[in-house]
Amino acid sequence: MYRPQIKVLDCTIRDGGLMNNWQFPKEMVKDLFQGLVEASVDYVELGYRVDKKMFSPTEFGPWRFCGEETLREVAYKCDTKISVMCDVGRTDYDAFLPASESIVSMFRVACYVKEVDKGIHLMKHLKSLGYETTLNLMAVSTNLEPDLDEALDQIADTGVDVVYLVDSFGYFYSEQIHYLAEKYKAKLPGKEIGIHCHNNQSLAFANTIEGIIRNINYVDGSIFGMGRSAGNCTTELLLGFLKNPKFRLQPVLALIDKYFVDMKAKLQWGYEIPYMITGNLNKHPRPGMAFVRERREGSKRSFVDYYNTMTDIDAVD
Amino acid sequence: MYRPQIKVLDCTIRDGGLMNNWQFPKEMVKDLFQGLVEASVDYVELGYRVDKKMFSPTEFGPWRFCGEETLREVAYKCDTKISVMCDVGRTDYDAFLPASESIVSMFRVACYVKEVDKGIHLMKHLKSLGYETTLNLMAVSTNLEPDLDEALDQIADTGVDVVYLVDSFGYFYSEQIHYLAEKYKAKLPGKEIGIHCHNNQSLAFANTIEGIIRNINYVDGSIFGMGRSAGNCTTELLLGFLKNPKFRLQPVLALIDKYFVDMKAKLQWGYEIPYMITGNLNKHPRPGMAFVRERREGSKRSFVDYYNTMTDIDAVD
Repeated sequence: MYRPQIKVLDCTIRDGGLMNNWQFPKEMVKDLFQGLVEASVDYVELGYRVDKKMFSPTEFGPWRFCGEETLREVAYKCDTKISVMCDVGRTDYDAFLPASESIVSMFRVACYVKEVDKGIHLMKHLKSLGYETTLNLMAVSTNLEPDLDEALDQIADTGVDVVYLVDSFGYFYSEQIHYLAEKYKAKLPGKEIGIHCHNNQSLAFANTIEGIIRNINYVDGSIFGMGRSAGNCTTELLLGFLKNPKFRLQPVLALIDKYFVDMKAKLQWGYEIPYMITGNLNKHPRPGMAFVRERREGSKRSFVDYYNTMTDIDAVD
Repeated sequence: MYRPQIKVLDCTIRDGGLMNNWQFPKEMVKDLFQGLVEASVDYVELGYRVDKKMFSPTEFGPWRFCGEETLREVAYKCDTKISVMCDVGRTDYDAFLPASESIVSMFRVACYVKEVDKGIHLMKHLKSLGYETTLNLMAVSTNLEPDLDEALDQIADTGVDVVYLVDSFGYFYSEQIHYLAEKYKAKLPGKEIGIHCHNNQSLAFANTIEGIIRNINYVDGSIFGMGRSAGNCTTELLLGFLKNPKFRLQPVLALIDKYFVDMKAKLQWGYEIPYMITGNLNKHPRPGMAFVRERREGSKRSFVDYYNTMTDIDAVD
């Protein structure tokens, strides 16, 4: 029997954009939105809305900015809602219409635990405009537990709709997801919990299922796993797993065929040794991405040398 | 705190050989064995020992036959033991030395549930020669439960050392591994349980961990996941996860660098849509492998067409 409360959010364009500076052609994003509507995905996240004064539209594609007009060229209001992410410290508070005039239904606010006050402030602003809101606490695998507890206690007193458990580095094993999911549920009574996993240790789908077992209802996927470094839980695996009869797999398979097989071969997200190592060591994938780029450009540096460097960093104390 | 009873078995050459007809050069297998000795892996499975009268040594490489002399060219007796797999119905009972004269420490007998009498018969023959033995019940995701129960009851009365829970099609989710691991433990008192997972749904590592949580002590991995279709749980992820201080990751990273990155690009095991679909549908990966081969040869057949064909088969009843 399926759990009707479970909502699938596809974040391909938003998280995948970290691999190509959000340079997706409009025709492709239009196809992608239409396919995900046909698949009955609940939310499609079409990018970030960052402050245009801080980033150059010549360096970054339109999905880094997600202006209302741009979104209307590729998507429309329907049962599949549009989500956009905001980062604290990179957001222009004046760049939002009231929800009633916007094509966007939900804004997700991403912040680190130490920035939770900023995150709550931005979330409240968006909530006051009438949007559904989430708070996505990034990289919680790097926090001391009392700091995380304090952040969750603060969030409990706000009107946020959903709080995400985020494994930014792809570090967690299922037992840790189990532990944290129960903590989030206990500390945030009445709120929905979401989960966003990375695949560095090939556990993104498994950890998302673990979250579902522990009563998490908002689950993130991306098509063919496209996302930073090792990528995300894949949307196709989620749709193959979930039992809600509304979901359809074929439209997602068609998108993979048309766009993502070639793109993955070129951009090289997914399970790769340099990302496996950063995940295993609970580190940001940045050095892994640099290593992959160097090797693609002909570097002969070995995996062992990379691993030894990465673990030497740990020896500095 | 680590569990000293946990044994890692690397089956790269045996399961990976299903992707290249066991055509690994001897120098490479020698390097691989030495690297896995340095990594402190407990068992290295160097192939199958099939009946030479049934398969042609021109079509198949030496690791399909694993003669004693061949094995001695690449490996030696040490703390890292040598394992070889036998299939029921493909084995020459006269092809085994007494264990005291052999370089092999363990023979693993693979059979389907319906062949369990044959599997037990072969296992007893090998046990009588002095070898460690296992029974690997393949594709248990396709059996009716009373048939599996009966097979386990039969096995309980034998002297076999280890019984493997095998997810041949990469179909199981963690809850099913949990259920079956507890069944195997309950039905086979005093015996060790092993686990061998395929990665069709990107769950091989996660399901292996689930097995470990449920007191399974023998865990299979292969280097960079090399194995049939979507491949296996990777040895490098296992060594990164397990806490026994004897394990070393670097020798495996060096092998991946030297051999497996290029081989994977050529042979294309790992998470691929055609294999994800057979796993999700609880089917043998054969049609997926045929589809991948066709596409590599220029076929324009789409994922959606393949999926629709695969699910139409289900409609025949």
